[in-house]
Amino acid sequence: MHMDRLATPALVIDRDVLDANIAVMSALRPGAALRPHVKAFKSTSLARRLAEAGHLGFCAATPREILGLAAAGLGDDLLLANEVLDPERLRELADCDARVTVAVDSVETVDAAARAGIREVLVDVDVGCFRCGCPPADAGRIADQARAAGLEVRGVMGYEGQLMMTPADERSERVAEAMAPLLDAHEAVGGEVISGGGTGTCLENTFVTELQAGSYTLMDTHYASQGLPFQQALSVVCTVISVNPGGWAVADGGLKALGMDHGNPTVEGYEALYFSDEHVTFTPGADGRLPEIGEQVRVRPAHVDPTVAYHESYRIVSDGQVVDDWPIDLRGW
Amino acid sequence: MHMDRLATPALVIDRDVLDANIAVMSALRPGAALRPHVKAFKSTSLARRLAEAGHLGFCAATPREILGLAAAGLGDDLLLANEVLDPERLRELADCDARVTVAVDSVETVDAAARAGIREVLVDVDVGCFRCGCPPADAGRIADQARAAGLEVRGVMGYEGQLMMTPADERSERVAEAMAPLLDAHEAVGGEVISGGGTGTCLENTFVTELQAGSYTLMDTHYASQGLPFQQALSVVCTVISVNPGGWAVADGGLKALGMDHGNPTVEGYEALYFSDEHVTFTPGADGRLPEIGEQVRVRPAHVDPTVAYHESYRIVSDGQVVDDWPIDLRGW
Repeated sequence: MHMDRLATPALVIDRDVLDANIAVMSALRPGAALRPHVKAFKSTSLARRLAEAGHLGFCAATPREILGLAAAGLGDDLLLANEVLDPERLRELADCDARVTVAVDSVETVDAAARAGIREVLVDVDVGCFRCGCPPADAGRIADQARAAGLEVRGVMGYEGQLMMTPADERSERVAEAMAPLLDAHEAVGGEVISGGGTGTCLENTFVTELQAGSYTLMDTHYASQGLPFQQALSVVCTVISVNPGGWAVADGGLKALGMDHGNPTVEGYEALYFSDEHVTFTPGADGRLPEIGEQVRVRPAHVDPTVAYHESYRIVSDGQVVDDWPIDLRGW
Repeated sequence: MHMDRLATPALVIDRDVLDANIAVMSALRPGAALRPHVKAFKSTSLARRLAEAGHLGFCAATPREILGLAAAGLGDDLLLANEVLDPERLRELADCDARVTVAVDSVETVDAAARAGIREVLVDVDVGCFRCGCPPADAGRIADQARAAGLEVRGVMGYEGQLMMTPADERSERVAEAMAPLLDAHEAVGGEVISGGGTGTCLENTFVTELQAGSYTLMDTHYASQGLPFQQALSVVCTVISVNPGGWAVADGGLKALGMDHGNPTVEGYEALYFSDEHVTFTPGADGRLPEIGEQVRVRPAHVDPTVAYHESYRIVSDGQVVDDWPIDLRGW
């Protein structure tokens, strides 16, 4: 089927761009040096392509992502890079058919993991992101508590999320500064794993043993501004449903098809005016023209993760043809 | 079950507040004078409560919302208040077990509706929202085209979305200005229906025969600032998973649980610092304290519609007890 017959709004992956992004990152971080973060794309079909590219360990932000990967046979080495206290969901993680490691950053999260039967943990360390992670000086104590509770401590993790949009010429220095306390914490904690980083620091973070990156596969306009060696594979394809002689047009994708926290997505070839629940209103671009009713337009998301979480599936496109359909089967919590 | 045992993030409706909101609006706009807009809440369970309150006609923004209402036996009089060109989905609407009216604003949308076997339409008129709707002067011509194509024209609709956040003391005047061209268009079009309005203009829009409002049922912080006679029934209940001695805490609801286009949601009792994919980071509120790890916090959405679209179900709470579970069964397109 040609993509001009897609029911819209449709979340579309350009397969050739995706494949190129995967190849570039696999060259930078081969095999276990990359632990792809599935929160960015939430699909076991895409995860399987990464496994085929040699990355057998995955990183996740929710219990459902872990359970879905396990059920899909992708459970070689799964890291829940997030703190969870819920005993039921922790027990499901402990009981699923996979090697599951969870992040802990407090005595409470250590206790919850141990009581649920979790076997392996990483100590999550605050590296300046103002989110989870213990103060670096507490990491050794938390590792001791975990070992005392019977948990295997595989090492440390720390996400320098505050640096994902740092200008390229400052990135090396700032990543080194952020990783220094993580390396100190690792000295105190022990174990083989130092996990961290993301798409935005994939070139500079040479301190971790494994990079946690997912957005590089699909990319968005925010990351595209950062001079990274990846191209945008993701778009929301919409149909123009109304053209007003006043000088604007409206397509059928809006706030329920696009994450908006990074600002307005980009309507290719036009100027986005505003987004409402199920619509984007736009004005002419440089060529001064508006589309016809029924034409498709491509909207490039500003933030991949909360965009993907709205959709049920990806339509995979190559050379204008829809060649596959991948369920977004890791949504929810 | 007490709500403190909820798996989080949980989308929670306070049932008593919802019931009060429904009662207030039913007094203002009884029976068919209100056509509740299901796009705000996307649940046939909530729609059924509105039907029980006497509102048997519904308004929707997507084909799936219409088909779901029809399948739930709520198909007395359904309006797709949006333009659709897709022949397959229009045919599904024509064939479903419901009275379905669709909006048209161009010869293309008239033709698509007629070819698919749709029987009834409203002419959608631009009343200043910079979205769909024909220029008022074109409405008569489009009605003629629709009748020539064999469609029954029930009247007109026009959404004054640009006025939903107008200060209360200007609203009457501005609503009257926006509705004047709709009334002119109605003169040219004929039919019994003048449909329009929304939660933000429910007190002032006395020009329409039926008000299209949905957000009033659940409310959000944006509408709550408008002095309307409705209270916030909706929250995202989260669990505190990390507390940092540096002075912040983190709970387990973020960009994939909350629509962000209206700015930051509110963390009750605290100051939201920022939201990331699965987290909200917050600092102490007026009392200077942070919660304990494991405590619940309530996050009030800034925009109800794109928040609801992320979730699978509502947990219905009354007096702190979870009393019901309503599927959000009208998601997608």
